[in-house]
Amino acid sequence: MSVFTEISEEQIAAFGEKRLLRHIRQWLGTAAPDSPFGMGDDCAVLPPCAHEAGLVTTDSLVLGRHFSAQMDPHQVGAKLLLRNLSDIAAMGGQPLYAVVAGFLPRVLSVRWLEPCIRGMAACADEFQVKIVGGDLAESPHDLALNLTLFGKVPSGSRPLLRSGASPGDLICVTGELGGSFPVRHLAIRPRIAEGRLLARFPEVIAAMDISDGTAIDLACMLPDETSAYLETASIPLHPDAHCAAERSGKSPLWHALNDGEDHELIIILRVNDDNALACIQAELSANRLQALHPIGRVGERGEAAILDAATGRPFPDLSGYDHFR
Amino acid sequence: MSVFTEISEEQIAAFGEKRLLRHIRQWLGTAAPDSPFGMGDDCAVLPPCAHEAGLVTTDSLVLGRHFSAQMDPHQVGAKLLLRNLSDIAAMGGQPLYAVVAGFLPRVLSVRWLEPCIRGMAACADEFQVKIVGGDLAESPHDLALNLTLFGKVPSGSRPLLRSGASPGDLICVTGELGGSFPVRHLAIRPRIAEGRLLARFPEVIAAMDISDGTAIDLACMLPDETSAYLETASIPLHPDAHCAAERSGKSPLWHALNDGEDHELIIILRVNDDNALACIQAELSANRLQALHPIGRVGERGEAAILDAATGRPFPDLSGYDHFR
Repeated sequence: MSVFTEISEEQIAAFGEKRLLRHIRQWLGTAAPDSPFGMGDDCAVLPPCAHEAGLVTTDSLVLGRHFSAQMDPHQVGAKLLLRNLSDIAAMGGQPLYAVVAGFLPRVLSVRWLEPCIRGMAACADEFQVKIVGGDLAESPHDLALNLTLFGKVPSGSRPLLRSGASPGDLICVTGELGGSFPVRHLAIRPRIAEGRLLARFPEVIAAMDISDGTAIDLACMLPDETSAYLETASIPLHPDAHCAAERSGKSPLWHALNDGEDHELIIILRVNDDNALACIQAELSANRLQALHPIGRVGERGEAAILDAATGRPFPDLSGYDHFR
Repeated sequence: MSVFTEISEEQIAAFGEKRLLRHIRQWLGTAAPDSPFGMGDDCAVLPPCAHEAGLVTTDSLVLGRHFSAQMDPHQVGAKLLLRNLSDIAAMGGQPLYAVVAGFLPRVLSVRWLEPCIRGMAACADEFQVKIVGGDLAESPHDLALNLTLFGKVPSGSRPLLRSGASPGDLICVTGELGGSFPVRHLAIRPRIAEGRLLARFPEVIAAMDISDGTAIDLACMLPDETSAYLETASIPLHPDAHCAAERSGKSPLWHALNDGEDHELIIILRVNDDNALACIQAELSANRLQALHPIGRVGERGEAAILDAATGRPFPDLSGYDHFR
């Protein structure tokens, strides 16, 4: 399946905007509500959410940066939504509505675009998200997609922020880490249900999803003059981290700390005894959700450093993804 | 002011994402609320809007398509928001929050990006919009920007849809038309106040903003088996339409009917006597807002055609903008 095509009748240029929009509407299927609650007017109208705080996040995919021409377009479309769902999960929120913007070269193949949109729509149906609008723009060269996702903090709950950690707090993650590229990042499981359940526990102080790398993201959650002391033996390594280590010559632990796009949640817990953690684990288990893996504690001193608890020294060679660098 | 630069320390690549974000936050100034109500967490938190319907719209700008390297970057940034504000205006809504996505080549000049962001922020301050989040992605070649704008339908009002017109209804516009390119499109005035006031009158049946061209956009508002009968002498011609006509060899009327990005509102009115229209005009005038210009009526028969009321025949040579074509 080629992204671009020389067969003129398969190029989006042969369709024109209005006909292409009709097709996209059809590919979206049940994920696209009727106007005025969806596509077709100057704005989409959203029913009022009385007394519930809103959440909004936005994320993009660019060909050659976040996906390649070799990837299944169905998975690319799903990934566009999944990345944003993971941000809603990290706030303990419930996803509701999305708008999508496409930057499309004229030679883009409709045979690639259709499974991409259908993949996004299937993911939207699974997570009960409605695609309510969007924009199509012609781009000279690059193929890029953006999705803005709107959600809410369920009534009686609260948004889980990144901030709030303090010395003594327990650091947990919701699943196995490392080696997300080249395969798993296309089929991440946003921890929506876990986030919503955890937000109900007062012991849960803060949360963030791992997108740039466990170490770099955890550092964002640490107040000044604290550090994270991680128990290396407790860090859950994904089988993919071992595969990545075989290819890179680095350790599986290095991949667990540095690889991007795990999209597990980092959870900061303030628990006075083992019983409180056991209660949370029991509730997660009763709902067939991911268990929490304690990986360390927030400690005094330092400058938001990620330290090996056994030695008190920083892990060597920490990196993490910084765009544009 | 160059969009791209060979001076490496002025390229965004020299800044990296985190430092660039700190600068952008500073350039946004008062338009950027503090976390969790703005940038800095997995999502932005929006305060609840009890009992008010929400509105959402999204629009993009691409270098070489919607703006050129010669344009003032301050105006480019403002235009990104203004286009979306015009969509909120067309629904009779009040704008509230925006998220912005940038697709930025590594060689983008920070000296171009700063006035672009500052221009958007100044426009946001003017219309009391808060920029609450965004995403930066590296793009291989194209410079593109997307903005998703959230608004609300003020309490006690209703959203103005495009649909609802029927034979006999009066067709009005909020200002002079034509010749928006190459200058005026960068400084459009979104008719937010006009839209909000008009939505309170039950005589106002439908509204839409003119983005692709008066004729093509008006055709979207006509039910099947109706046509628009326009009084050519009543169509308000912008001075720019005369300039455009001198360059193109077409008539100013042609430009008023076909040029894109006027961003005036088309308003469909159901008035039984001249007094009802006079009441609306008096209220607009009392609030120092744009007067309505009646330009024709919805008539029976036809297939959503735009007809000259004097002859009953279609205007010759109608076009309007269709992306990708």
